[in-house]
Amino acid sequence: KMLRRVLCTVLFMGALPPLAEASQGHISVVLLGATGDLAKKYLWQGLFQLYMDQVSSGYSFTFHGAALTAVEPGQRLMFDVLKKLACPPDESPNRCAVLKDQFLKLSQYHQLKTAENYTVLNREIETLLHQEGLKEAGRIFYFSVPPFAYTEIAHHINSSCRPPPGAWLRVVLEKPFGHDLESAQQLAAELSGFFREEEMYRVDHYLGKQAVAHILPFRHQNRRFLDPIWNRHHVERVEIVLKETVDAKGRISFYEQYGVIRDVLQNHLTEALMFLTMELPDNVSRAEEVLQCKLKAFQSLQGLEKKSVVLGQYQAYTSQVQEELQKAQDYISTTPTFAGVLIHSDNPRWEGVPLLLTSGKALDERVGYVRVLFKNRAYCPQRETLRDAGHSQCKAKQIIFYIGHGALNTPAVLVSRNLFRPVMPKDTWREAVGQSDLHIFGQPLSDYYMYSPVKERDAYSVLISNIYHGRKDFFITTENLLASWAFWTPLLSSISHLPLRLYPGGVENQHLLDFEMMSGEVAFTLAEPLELLNPSRLMPNDYRTIQSKFRQNPLVSAWSEDLISQLASDIEKTASRTVVQTGQFHLALSGGSSPVVLFQQLARHHYAFPWKDTHIWLVDERCVPLADTESNFFTLHKHLLQRVRVPYFNIHPMPVHLNQRLCVEEDRGTELYAKEIMALVANASFDLVLLGMGTDGHTASLFPHSETGLEGAQTVVLTESPVKPHQRMSLSLPLINKARKVFVLVLGKGKHDITTLLSRVGHEPRKWPISGVSPSSGQLVWYVDYEALLG
Amino acid sequence: KMLRRVLCTVLFMGALPPLAEASQGHISVVLLGATGDLAKKYLWQGLFQLYMDQVSSGYSFTFHGAALTAVEPGQRLMFDVLKKLACPPDESPNRCAVLKDQFLKLSQYHQLKTAENYTVLNREIETLLHQEGLKEAGRIFYFSVPPFAYTEIAHHINSSCRPPPGAWLRVVLEKPFGHDLESAQQLAAELSGFFREEEMYRVDHYLGKQAVAHILPFRHQNRRFLDPIWNRHHVERVEIVLKETVDAKGRISFYEQYGVIRDVLQNHLTEALMFLTMELPDNVSRAEEVLQCKLKAFQSLQGLEKKSVVLGQYQAYTSQVQEELQKAQDYISTTPTFAGVLIHSDNPRWEGVPLLLTSGKALDERVGYVRVLFKNRAYCPQRETLRDAGHSQCKAKQIIFYIGHGALNTPAVLVSRNLFRPVMPKDTWREAVGQSDLHIFGQPLSDYYMYSPVKERDAYSVLISNIYHGRKDFFITTENLLASWAFWTPLLSSISHLPLRLYPGGVENQHLLDFEMMSGEVAFTLAEPLELLNPSRLMPNDYRTIQSKFRQNPLVSAWSEDLISQLASDIEKTASRTVVQTGQFHLALSGGSSPVVLFQQLARHHYAFPWKDTHIWLVDERCVPLADTESNFFTLHKHLLQRVRVPYFNIHPMPVHLNQRLCVEEDRGTELYAKEIMALVANASFDLVLLGMGTDGHTASLFPHSETGLEGAQTVVLTESPVKPHQRMSLSLPLINKARKVFVLVLGKGKHDITTLLSRVGHEPRKWPISGVSPSSGQLVWYVDYEALLG
Repeated sequence: KMLRRVLCTVLFMGALPPLAEASQGHISVVLLGATGDLAKKYLWQGLFQLYMDQVSSGYSFTFHGAALTAVEPGQRLMFDVLKKLACPPDESPNRCAVLKDQFLKLSQYHQLKTAENYTVLNREIETLLHQEGLKEAGRIFYFSVPPFAYTEIAHHINSSCRPPPGAWLRVVLEKPFGHDLESAQQLAAELSGFFREEEMYRVDHYLGKQAVAHILPFRHQNRRFLDPIWNRHHVERVEIVLKETVDAKGRISFYEQYGVIRDVLQNHLTEALMFLTMELPDNVSRAEEVLQCKLKAFQSLQGLEKKSVVLGQYQAYTSQVQEELQKAQDYISTTPTFAGVLIHSDNPRWEGVPLLLTSGKALDERVGYVRVLFKNRAYCPQRETLRDAGHSQCKAKQIIFYIGHGALNTPAVLVSRNLFRPVMPKDTWREAVGQSDLHIFGQPLSDYYMYSPVKERDAYSVLISNIYHGRKDFFITTENLLASWAFWTPLLSSISHLPLRLYPGGVENQHLLDFEMMSGEVAFTLAEPLELLNPSRLMPNDYRTIQSKFRQNPLVSAWSEDLISQLASDIEKTASRTVVQTGQFHLALSGGSSPVVLFQQLARHHYAFPWKDTHIWLVDERCVPLADTESNFFTLHKHLLQRVRVPYFNIHPMPVHLNQRLCVEEDRGTELYAKEIMALVANASFDLVLLGMGTDGHTASLFPHSETGLEGAQTVVLTESPVKPHQRMSLSLPLINKARKVFVLVLGKGKHDITTLLSRVGHEPRKWPISGVSPSSGQLVWYVDYEALLG
Repeated sequence: KMLRRVLCTVLFMGALPPLAEASQGHISVVLLGATGDLAKKYLWQGLFQLYMDQVSSGYSFTFHGAALTAVEPGQRLMFDVLKKLACPPDESPNRCAVLKDQFLKLSQYHQLKTAENYTVLNREIETLLHQEGLKEAGRIFYFSVPPFAYTEIAHHINSSCRPPPGAWLRVVLEKPFGHDLESAQQLAAELSGFFREEEMYRVDHYLGKQAVAHILPFRHQNRRFLDPIWNRHHVERVEIVLKETVDAKGRISFYEQYGVIRDVLQNHLTEALMFLTMELPDNVSRAEEVLQCKLKAFQSLQGLEKKSVVLGQYQAYTSQVQEELQKAQDYISTTPTFAGVLIHSDNPRWEGVPLLLTSGKALDERVGYVRVLFKNRAYCPQRETLRDAGHSQCKAKQIIFYIGHGALNTPAVLVSRNLFRPVMPKDTWREAVGQSDLHIFGQPLSDYYMYSPVKERDAYSVLISNIYHGRKDFFITTENLLASWAFWTPLLSSISHLPLRLYPGGVENQHLLDFEMMSGEVAFTLAEPLELLNPSRLMPNDYRTIQSKFRQNPLVSAWSEDLISQLASDIEKTASRTVVQTGQFHLALSGGSSPVVLFQQLARHHYAFPWKDTHIWLVDERCVPLADTESNFFTLHKHLLQRVRVPYFNIHPMPVHLNQRLCVEEDRGTELYAKEIMALVANASFDLVLLGMGTDGHTASLFPHSETGLEGAQTVVLTESPVKPHQRMSLSLPLINKARKVFVLVLGKGKHDITTLLSRVGHEPRKWPISGVSPSSGQLVWYVDYEALLG
């Protein structure tokens, strides 16, 4: 009955085209949200394009629009949309008119609201197929509906609308797919109750942008040119950028919950980055291999920190929020509308290469691109003015996947002429000649080989075609989605209250949003709006340090950041002098959390440190395997040793792990270490020992109320800590006191009480081992930050 | 008598100015070669400048020109030169005229030929001082004579012309100071027989160029700006360039012996490089500290190889040589007139930063500069066309010490405005405004802060002033000289027969001399004259490898370079697959020389190698301490481990050194290693074992005619090598044969006989241990290069 009515509608529009001629099987496409904005703007057009492309493929099609609206008005609304479908410029108008007529006849509207509606739809499809004598090939359900509706629809499809065995089901999902890792996991878990992984096609429409979709094929087809240069030795930086001129007006209720990172970076830009940085699978056309490589690329991304990002908000945003969400006049939104993020990968190919993701609303132009800038490795003796433009190796070298808009206003692939002439598939990309006077990324267009698509196609029609072809690599798998959220979520939580740079919008932004990279961090270049660069940013700190006395010894005190800088400099100075004097530098380092920042400081900023001649010893160690994350050595390795060039031979971890067991007396680890010290360190007198101090007054792994290691001839001892892991190995107090220098680092409010106490007591190592530190002929310096010193 | 005659000459010119008014003491300057080209062109003018500057210093002066010419004609020649001395433009003409008159009166000519001439000169100086009642402050002897005359003159000065105790002697020497390390050492040794180190002032006139002389003061005065950026993290590259338009015509007899490297790079450009890269001493005005730091900078330079350099010769050079040296028409000169050299420093500050030295004759322009180009670390969201010129952080950042000539035609210091406004000494440098439309190094002059000298002074007058002030840091000490020759000599010997790129000269050179850096090497960009870049240079090799069988197992054969590439790729592939399967990759590597190139290849080119998950084991080891250069582990460390990121925990050297002794049975090193293998390697089955093969058929450290390690349960054994060091530790054959893969690498003609033999024999490990390699369930692949295979 229902079928009859629908078919009547169809027949009313004209005769149903003869479906049975096509014998490969029948495909039913169901578009949920058939009268919504996305459907109107892109999806129907994409389906029509699919029909035009596939009408001779041997498959037959029907298209089912669906929504909550009742049949009559829904039908009207939908056919209003369908009637406006455009013929592509490259299609003959006659053929197109015929096909459009057929397409309309193959399209029906359904109200899909109740469980029964779905059952009826399913029955209609079955009946039609039966009547026409068609085998079913598969069904596509396109969810163009808000995410809160997903579960219910998924439930109905799973219960009532699955195709019979042998035919496939593809459900197409539109973002957002959660707003953080947890919600994404939850959503994914729900969906997995209804659909198998291979049935789900999560759309990121950026993957359908022609330039983005061509990144992997380009890398594959130009492998012989790219292989030698697609790495950290040749790539200067990667920029993935989506700039918009529009602002969020009218979409505030959505935008205010998401912000620019969730809206654009977490999905579109990250996906493009993965295509660029992933290792190429042996076979780029095998979706499974592509997806595996992409997942690996996610895993090698270094975690983001607060300082990996700069955030901004256009000035009008807050008032737009107040207006659209009816908030009070003093309501302040902390949602960023601009973000620049510096990403690093641990993959050896990309190690150290800045990967920049940038996007924002209310900027000066609308443009999207993926740009790989290569290092300039040439020297050209000829004067610049005499250099031949296209071929000079001294000109910039870059490869750009131009997504669209901007100065070019077309998708394009650009390769600097001094790199190579790229291999491009002739049927889909053609060489283009741009305006000769146009400059793009600092160079005239004539400096590039430039290609643009033979047929410009919008992202949705590309994606719909890929759904039809079952190309899962154009979509976001669950694993992929969760990997991306796992990468972004920690940053999103940590920046929720970061200050935002306010910007006026458009051309007025000037240099306000320019940002710079420094030691793996980013910061806006201009310290304050509209003022020029203050060179003090580049200056080292004038250490605002207190120089004084503590327990009769020199005290250096400052805010912790300055203190660490000062300490690192002092260690470097000591090292340099010692190496000049003796040819080597024996440095004994403590575990614990305080030194981590020091290690990072030393690794990042002390270029002249004589690492080659430095021996690294441990002050104390926990009785766990060296590669255990609890091990002091592991921390030292992670934050310092793996980043500087201390020769393997100069590294001396404590032998806590011998004969496959930990700190067993009879394995004589302490003796072994003592011997090693005796053999290498003149007079067993370390050049510098760095100590910390516990809230209980312990230092090294010498704890209160124990005599072990406080006196006597034993230089390395096994001790017991009151906290886990209990067993420790430690240098003894007498050995520490033989050092030429001892620096004690004390950081944080938590140390204030013990610091105060210690300033009053004498030499009582049994109560407070730290009070026993008193180098017999060396120097002791206290580095105590203001929080520990002043509370 | 002689004195009288000379003084008569002087008096004939006018009355001697009253010397005695000056009471600080008297300085006698003796210019040897007083009528030569250099003296005419620069030295007398420099001495006159010194006199003008120091006339009120409290010292008195006399100037003694000397040459081999007899007195009368010599006198005439010399005074012809003196009469032409120019007054500097910034000096008042009246004062200058008076001073010039005085200068002429204070100047005398001497014939210095015989020992007696020197004695007489000495006596004259003494007499004059006695007559005038003057104390002697010091004597300067300026050697402006060919180097073959040095020894004799030095001998005479030392014997007869030393000033009395309390007064100083300074002898000024002009290059060349030898033509390689040996000759320079010889010359230095000879001179040291006559003069003390502090008495010698070796001139490199480049150190007197105002821009070069200002490098160190600039670095010191701008320390707070430079400290954070003067390092590998911020500097993109350094270029030190001296381009000349003239060719060597007329100077061929000199040039043909030296060539561009000895003429310009070894001295001028290297010295400038040292000023740029050396660590700053605490006190830049203490010559001794400066010289020490400079010497250290020399020591951290990495050795040069053939591939560190590109060489050229202008086309007319050979015919000029034929003409000036009367050579036959088929004589070909191999002297380079153009060189581009890529230098790297091991100093952690500069590690990896390309330091480019370039010079040539017959180029398109005359210019000299030292240029530091910084990395661009900024991202600017605003469209380029809207960016404010001077302050955009997205523009290039550079610091240039412009030595002279070229587009600016003045010495200058330029600092990009987006870096910082430099601190410059106001009395000697002033801010300059250049032509607004002038572009320099890709940017308009208005993008720079530009400073030029208040008084432009030629290098010699700067140097003469520094001699007078005893500023030894402006001169080349013996240690400095020898360090420089020690650096350049190996290259000079290795390139004596390298092909030279011929170039037409001038503007016609076009791109012919452009060169590029690739993996630490340089090469001309254009493969053949006047043809465009052939992209095949960028392609990986199409391995022209033979795939076949050897001893029933797969054989890969190729020229050694291709073979190594193939082997490295195969190892990487195995590693990646194994890590995917098992999470880790256990690789056992052999010692010997063949794997070194493999290690380098792996370190340089295999970005995707899963080092983080790789465990490195040794196949065999010599019983020497690990840090001994003879140790296999040391070689592995040097060429591979220190350049990739294998975690410390995954590196497993053989424990040959226990309890401070080597391979002592009872220390149980073999047992220890066996246990470590058992604990970490599943089933003690390595994923890949790389073996070599000796000419005697040994492999690992398993030698012919010994049963040790060939059979039985012992997995790690101590063995005896027929060659030193005799004692070895080795994996046993049964353990090797448990591996999942074994690759055997055989390289070089020397292995041809054993390779041939081995192709014919069966399993006879006692005779040829390599023949016992036969993995029980793994795969064996032979990698044998053409030389070993085909002889």
